[in-house]
Amino acid sequence: MTAACSSVGRPKLKKLSPAQNNRLIMARIVQKFGGTSVAELDRIRAVAQRVKAEVDAGNQVAVVVSAMSGTTNQLVKWATDIGPVHDAREYDVIVATGEQVTVGLLAIALQNIGVDARSWLGWQIALQTDDIHSSARIKGIDVAQIEDRLMQGQVAVVAGFQGISPGGRVTTLGRGGSDTSAVALAAALNADRCDIYTDVDGVYTTDPRIMPKARKLDQITFEEMLEMASAGAKVLQTRSVAMAMRHKVHLQVLSSFSDEPGTLVIDEDDVMEEQKISGIAYSRDEAKVTLVSLPDQPGIAATVFGTLAEHHINVDMIVQSASADKQNTDITFSLGALDLDKAVDCLEAIKNKLGYQALVADPDMAKVSVIGTAMRSQPGIARTMFSVLAEKGINLHVISTSEIKISVLIDSDYTELAVRSLHDVFGLETA
Amino acid sequence: MTAACSSVGRPKLKKLSPAQNNRLIMARIVQKFGGTSVAELDRIRAVAQRVKAEVDAGNQVAVVVSAMSGTTNQLVKWATDIGPVHDAREYDVIVATGEQVTVGLLAIALQNIGVDARSWLGWQIALQTDDIHSSARIKGIDVAQIEDRLMQGQVAVVAGFQGISPGGRVTTLGRGGSDTSAVALAAALNADRCDIYTDVDGVYTTDPRIMPKARKLDQITFEEMLEMASAGAKVLQTRSVAMAMRHKVHLQVLSSFSDEPGTLVIDEDDVMEEQKISGIAYSRDEAKVTLVSLPDQPGIAATVFGTLAEHHINVDMIVQSASADKQNTDITFSLGALDLDKAVDCLEAIKNKLGYQALVADPDMAKVSVIGTAMRSQPGIARTMFSVLAEKGINLHVISTSEIKISVLIDSDYTELAVRSLHDVFGLETA
Repeated sequence: MTAACSSVGRPKLKKLSPAQNNRLIMARIVQKFGGTSVAELDRIRAVAQRVKAEVDAGNQVAVVVSAMSGTTNQLVKWATDIGPVHDAREYDVIVATGEQVTVGLLAIALQNIGVDARSWLGWQIALQTDDIHSSARIKGIDVAQIEDRLMQGQVAVVAGFQGISPGGRVTTLGRGGSDTSAVALAAALNADRCDIYTDVDGVYTTDPRIMPKARKLDQITFEEMLEMASAGAKVLQTRSVAMAMRHKVHLQVLSSFSDEPGTLVIDEDDVMEEQKISGIAYSRDEAKVTLVSLPDQPGIAATVFGTLAEHHINVDMIVQSASADKQNTDITFSLGALDLDKAVDCLEAIKNKLGYQALVADPDMAKVSVIGTAMRSQPGIARTMFSVLAEKGINLHVISTSEIKISVLIDSDYTELAVRSLHDVFGLETA
Repeated sequence: MTAACSSVGRPKLKKLSPAQNNRLIMARIVQKFGGTSVAELDRIRAVAQRVKAEVDAGNQVAVVVSAMSGTTNQLVKWATDIGPVHDAREYDVIVATGEQVTVGLLAIALQNIGVDARSWLGWQIALQTDDIHSSARIKGIDVAQIEDRLMQGQVAVVAGFQGISPGGRVTTLGRGGSDTSAVALAAALNADRCDIYTDVDGVYTTDPRIMPKARKLDQITFEEMLEMASAGAKVLQTRSVAMAMRHKVHLQVLSSFSDEPGTLVIDEDDVMEEQKISGIAYSRDEAKVTLVSLPDQPGIAATVFGTLAEHHINVDMIVQSASADKQNTDITFSLGALDLDKAVDCLEAIKNKLGYQALVADPDMAKVSVIGTAMRSQPGIARTMFSVLAEKGINLHVISTSEIKISVLIDSDYTELAVRSLHDVFGLETA
C-alpha cells in the first residue's frame, strides 16, 4: 500500500532503487481513526497495531483520533439536557473530553506493544483556533514539540476535534472536526501522507448500498472529492478536503477493518489518465421552497436570502425565473429538510414586505450529482444526464452546475432510480 | 448557617451590627461538591441552586466539583483494562475528563438560572503540581485570573482532582483529590469559608450505621479531624484536613441533600468549650503480622520495615517486645488486609536474612480509636478505654497513642461492640 501510494499519490518523492532498504524510506505519516475505529478497547488495540506497522516500517507517525463512537452523543445529550441556554464555550469543555479519553487509551495501548507514544491535547500542542466555539477554525499549529518527539521516534497521539482559543478556552471544530485536525496537522508537519481510516474502504463511484455495481476508486482529484463531499458523499468532510487541497496534503481514505488499498485523493496535475466521470453523489433530506410571483425589483433576492442567512438557514441551489406576467419573478431554492419549517416561518413573517403571491414548500426532495473532471473537456455530459433522467420520467426541479459537477433536485422517491441510471449510463462499474 | 459559621467558625471576622444588611457582608466562599452530589443532571441543577443562594447573599463564590459518581470508575476501568502496563501520565489524561464534564455542565446549569459562571480546568487556572502522576501534590495556584472574575461577580466553577505538571501534562491528585483542590483553592483565595458538601450532613461522634445514638458534632478541631480521618472516618480525606490546618482554612462539612447545619472544623485556639472526647473512629480490613523471635540486633526493625516500604506496603501500628528468652524480640505490626499476602511474601523471602522463628499472619483485624483533645488534660481516658474493652472480653493486640488519640487493634468481629461500648462510656450521645 505504501508502494502504491508513493508511485501514484506522491509523484514528487524520488524513486528508490530496489536495492534500497524499505526501512530507510522514513516517511512522515499522519493517521486518523474515526469513532467506529476506536469504539471499544479491542478496536483501540487494533488501531495500535496499525500504528506499530508504520513505525516498524521506519516511519514517523502522528495519530489523530476521534471519541469512541457513542461517547460524543452522550456528552452532547448531557450538555443540551442540562438547560435550554447553551454556552458554546462550556459545551466545548464537555464534548472535548471524548477525544481526551481516546488519546490516553491509545497511548497506553501503544506502550503495551512496545511503541513509545504520548498523548497530546489541543491546548498542549497548541492547536490554535479562533473563538467561534463548537465550529472553530484552525489558525495555526505549534508543531515544534511534536516534531521533536517524532524525530526521536516517539508516536504523537493527538486528540482530534479540539483546539484552544486566543483566550485559552477549549474549542471544538464542529462536524468532521477530527478529519480537519488530521489534515491540518499533516500540513503543519509537512507529512508525506495523511491516511484517513474509516469504516468504508475508500471512495466509491456511488453509495454501494443503493448501487451494488459501485466501484471503489483508486484515486480521485481534490476538486472531485470536494464536490463529492459537498454533494452528500459522507466519507470525508468538505472542510478537510478543502484544507488538504489548499495545502497539497496527500490524502488517502482507507478502512480500519481491512487491509485493502484505499482511495488516494490527489492533485489534478498528478493525474496521468484522461479526464473522466468519477462518481454519482446524492443527498436525501432536501427540501424545496418556491416563492411565486414576486415583484421583479432590484434587491428582492438579497432580502429573501439575507433574511434566511440571519436565521442561520443554509440555502443550497437557487433558481430565479420570470413569471408569466413578466413584471414578476419566481424564486425557487433548495435547503435541508430540517430547516424547512423555520424558513417558511421566516418568509411568511415578511410576506408583506416581499409581496409574493404564494409560497410553495416541498419537504421530500433529493439532490443527485454527477461529478468528474471530464466535464471540462466533454460538453455532452449534461445532455446525457438530462436525457437518461427524462427517459425514466424523473422531473428536474432545480439544476445547478459547477466546473466539474452537475446537480439536480428531484422528488426523493426517484433517488435510487436516478443514481443507478446515471451510474450505468456513464459506465462507472468499469474503470 | 452563615451566621452560625461567622460567630463560631470564623472568630476573626468582625461582628456586624444588626442594622448592617446581610447583603453587605460579601464573604468569599469556596464550595465543594462530591461525586454523589453531582451524580445526575437534576442533582447538578440542585447544586446550581446552592451556589446561587450564596451569590444572592452577596458572596463571591468558587465551586470545586468532582466527577459524576460512577464516571471515574468507568474511566479507571478503561485505563486499566486497555493493557497491563500503566503509564500514569496517560491514566491521568483519561481520568481527569470526569471532572471536566462536570464543570461544563454546572457552568451551563448556573447560566440557566441567571448566574454568571465559567468553568476552569486544572491547566487553565493553573493549579500547579509536581509530576508524581495519579497522586500529585499541589505546588501552587495562580488565582489572579479567578480572583479578578470573582470581583466582577462571576462564579468560578473549578475542576477538582486535576492539575498541571511542570512539563505541562495533566496530573491528578489521587484519592480525595477534590477535597484537597477545594482546600488549596480556599487557601490561595484567602476564602472566608470552605464548605465541603457531601452525602452525610456532618462529622459524627461515630458511624451512625453501627451506633444509632451517634451525634453530629457542631464543631471539631483540625487535630481531631485529622486523627478521625486517618483512623478511618471517611467524611474528609486526611490530606485535605492537613492542608486546611496548615493554612487555617475554615472548613465546614455539610450535606448536599439537606439544609441542616453541618460540622465546623476549627482551630483549637478558637474552641471556647472545655476539651473533650470528640469521637470513636474505626477501620475494618486491617491485618496483623507477628515475627516471632527475631534476633535482637540493631537495625533489624529497619530491615523489616525498609523492605516493606520498598514494596509500597504501608504499615500502621508497630509493637516490638522482648521474647521469653531475652536475646530475641517479637515484632508485631498492622497493615491493610489487601497488602497482607504481599507483605508475607516479602518477609518470607528474607527469612534467612532476618532469622525469625515464625511468621504469624492474621487477616481479620479492626482498628478502633478514641479521639479528642480531652486526652491532653485528662489522664484517665486510656484506663477507661481499656477497662471497658476488657469488661466486654475484647483482646487488644496492638495499642498506639498520639497526643489526642488512642487506637487499639482488635479482632474484627468485636468492632461494633467496641465502638458502641466506647461511645457509651464516654457519653458521646450528649453534647
